[in-house]
Amino acid sequence: MHEIETPAVVVDADRLDANVARVARTVAERGLALRPHVKTHKIREVAALQLAAGAVGITVATIGEAEAFAAPDTFIAYPLWLTPAKAARLRALPGRVAFGVDSAAGAAQAGSALGADAGRFEVLVEVDSGHHRSGAQPSDVAEVATAARDAGLRVTGAFTFPGHAYGPGSAGPAASGERDALVEAGERLRAAGFDVARLSGGSTPSLAATEAHGATEVRPGVYVFGDAQQWELGHCAPEDIALTVLATVVSAHGDRLILDAGSKMLGADRATWATGHGRLLDHPEARLTAISEHHVTVTGADLRLGDIVRVVPNHVCNVVNLVDEVVVVRGGEPVGRWAVAARGMNG
Amino acid sequence: MHEIETPAVVVDADRLDANVARVARTVAERGLALRPHVKTHKIREVAALQLAAGAVGITVATIGEAEAFAAPDTFIAYPLWLTPAKAARLRALPGRVAFGVDSAAGAAQAGSALGADAGRFEVLVEVDSGHHRSGAQPSDVAEVATAARDAGLRVTGAFTFPGHAYGPGSAGPAASGERDALVEAGERLRAAGFDVARLSGGSTPSLAATEAHGATEVRPGVYVFGDAQQWELGHCAPEDIALTVLATVVSAHGDRLILDAGSKMLGADRATWATGHGRLLDHPEARLTAISEHHVTVTGADLRLGDIVRVVPNHVCNVVNLVDEVVVVRGGEPVGRWAVAARGMNG
Repeated sequence: MHEIETPAVVVDADRLDANVARVARTVAERGLALRPHVKTHKIREVAALQLAAGAVGITVATIGEAEAFAAPDTFIAYPLWLTPAKAARLRALPGRVAFGVDSAAGAAQAGSALGADAGRFEVLVEVDSGHHRSGAQPSDVAEVATAARDAGLRVTGAFTFPGHAYGPGSAGPAASGERDALVEAGERLRAAGFDVARLSGGSTPSLAATEAHGATEVRPGVYVFGDAQQWELGHCAPEDIALTVLATVVSAHGDRLILDAGSKMLGADRATWATGHGRLLDHPEARLTAISEHHVTVTGADLRLGDIVRVVPNHVCNVVNLVDEVVVVRGGEPVGRWAVAARGMNG
Repeated sequence: MHEIETPAVVVDADRLDANVARVARTVAERGLALRPHVKTHKIREVAALQLAAGAVGITVATIGEAEAFAAPDTFIAYPLWLTPAKAARLRALPGRVAFGVDSAAGAAQAGSALGADAGRFEVLVEVDSGHHRSGAQPSDVAEVATAARDAGLRVTGAFTFPGHAYGPGSAGPAASGERDALVEAGERLRAAGFDVARLSGGSTPSLAATEAHGATEVRPGVYVFGDAQQWELGHCAPEDIALTVLATVVSAHGDRLILDAGSKMLGADRATWATGHGRLLDHPEARLTAISEHHVTVTGADLRLGDIVRVVPNHVCNVVNLVDEVVVVRGGEPVGRWAVAARGMNG
C-alpha cells in the first residue's frame, strides 16, 4: 500500500465482493428484490458487481446520477420537481425509469413538464415512515397517486426511506415504522384502484432488522463499503469495511497527531452519538477529536510522524463524492483505479 | 436567475469585487502584505482578482492546489511530509515557493526528499497560537528552524493559523494569541541567528480584530464569499455574502419544506453554535433544521412548492470543493461560469 500517495480513497475489492454477495444472498432469502442505492459509491464498476449478483436495477437520487449510470432499470428515489430542462433529461434516459412524487402539485408539475411522454414513466409515491423528511403521510397516498394518474403518469407503488434508523437502538423501531407505512400505502393504493407492483423500502441499518417486511424491494446503499457510523451502530464489523482513506501522520505534538486528510477527504458528517470524526481501522482505541479541511486530530494512538494509517470515514457516501477516482486493492496490493463516474451529479 | 437549474452554486460577482477591494484596502492601511488563502474558492479567476487588487501572492493548503494555480508566488501553509513523489511535484512548481514545517523530523524529511534542491524553497515554521492543531509551541521554534537549516532549507519566518477565532466572542482572544505567538516566534528566530522576513497570520475572523498585529502578512480566505458561519459570528453582513446555493422547494408537508440541496451541495459542516445547516439569504427567519445528501429541511419560511431560494452554506470552503463550476451573476443575471480548477486537489 505504501506506493500510494496520501491522502487517497482506497477500496478493498475483496471485502467489497464479500459485502455485495452477502447482502444479495440475504435479500434473496427473504424473497425481496434488491435495488441498491448507488449514491453510496457512484462507481460503474461497483454497480456492475451488484447487478451481476442479482440486483434487479439501481436506485439513484438525481437525474444526473441516472445519466452517469445509464442502467437498464433505474429508480430515482426522490420527489423530483420537473422543470422543462429536467423533463428533457428524463426523456433522454435509457431503459425503464421510475421516479418519486410526494405531492399532488409535484405530480401535476411532472405531468405538465413531460407532456405526452408522461406515460412512459413509472412513479412511486413517497411516504413518510417516521423520518419526517420528504414523503406524504400514508393516509394521503391515494390522493397523491390520483393526482399523478390524472397527470398522465403511471403509478406502480410507493416507497419510503427509514432514515431515522441511523441512531443507537433505532433500527428496529424504524424498520417497524417502515413496514407499517408500506403496508398502509399498499392497502390505500389498492383501495383506490391502483395495481401495486412495487413497495420499496430499506436502508442498510433497517435491512438487518428482521421486522422490515412489507416491501417488495429494498434499496440499501452503504452496505457495499460500510463506514464508521455503521461500525459504531453495530451494523457492520470493522473487518467488513471496504473503503478507507489512506493518510499520513504529518504533525505530532504531545498526544496530538495530525493526519493529512480533513473534511475535504473525509466529509464533515458527525452524528451527535459518534465518537469523533471517523475511526482508524487498525487502531480502534484512537479517537478523531477535531477536523478541519486538511487536518484531522487523532488522540490515543501510538503512531509516529510519517506513519500511514487507514481512516474509516463517518459517512462514506459523502467521501466518494469528494474524489475523481478510488484506488482498488486486492490482497493488500493496488491493482487499479475506478473513476467516480457520478461524482458531483447533484441535479 | 430562473434560467439556472437547481441545485447550483452561484457567485455574485458584484459582491465578490466589493469584498476583494474592501479587504485589500483594510490590509494595506495596516501596512500588512495580503496573501489570501485560495482554498476557499479554488478558482483561478478569483485569484486573479485578488492579485490585481494588490495581493503579494497566494496561500494554498496542498501541493495539488499550488499546481492548479501555478502562481508566481505561493505559500503552502501546511506542514508537508515530503515523500519522493511529493518532492518531485514541489520541484516542478513555478515561481517562488514556500512551505511549512512544524517538527525537526518533518524538516529533515523535507531536506532529504528535496536533496540538492532544498535551498530553492523557503520554509516557515508553523507555531501553535492556541488552536492546538498542527504547529510547534513558540518556545520550540528555534529548534525546528535549526533542523530545517541543517537540512538545507531556507528558513524565512514563521506562520500560525488562529482557527480558534471561529466561535462566538473568540475572534479577539484568538487574535491576541496570534499576535503573541508570532512576536515570540520572531524573537526566538532572531535570537537563534535567523533573518525573519515573514511572520504570517490571519484568518477572516481574526482579521477584523484590531489586536491582530505582529504579522508581516495575513492569509484570510473566506472574506471573498462569506458564509453562514461568518454571518452568525458577525464577521460579515448578509448583504456581503457573495456565494449561495440556488435550490428549489421540492416537498412541503405542514411547516416542513425540503430543498433539493443537501450535504453533497452544502457540505455537512455544522458548528455547535450554528443555528442550523445554513441559512436562507432572503428569509433570515427560516431555520435549516436537518440535512441529508440531497435534502435540507427548512422551517419557518413562507415558501411554496417550486419556489427557488438562495441558501447560504455554513462553511463555504467545503461547498466550492463539491462542484466543477460555479455560475457567475452580475446585476442578478447570469453572465458566465468559472471552473473550480483546484477542486479535489487534496494531496
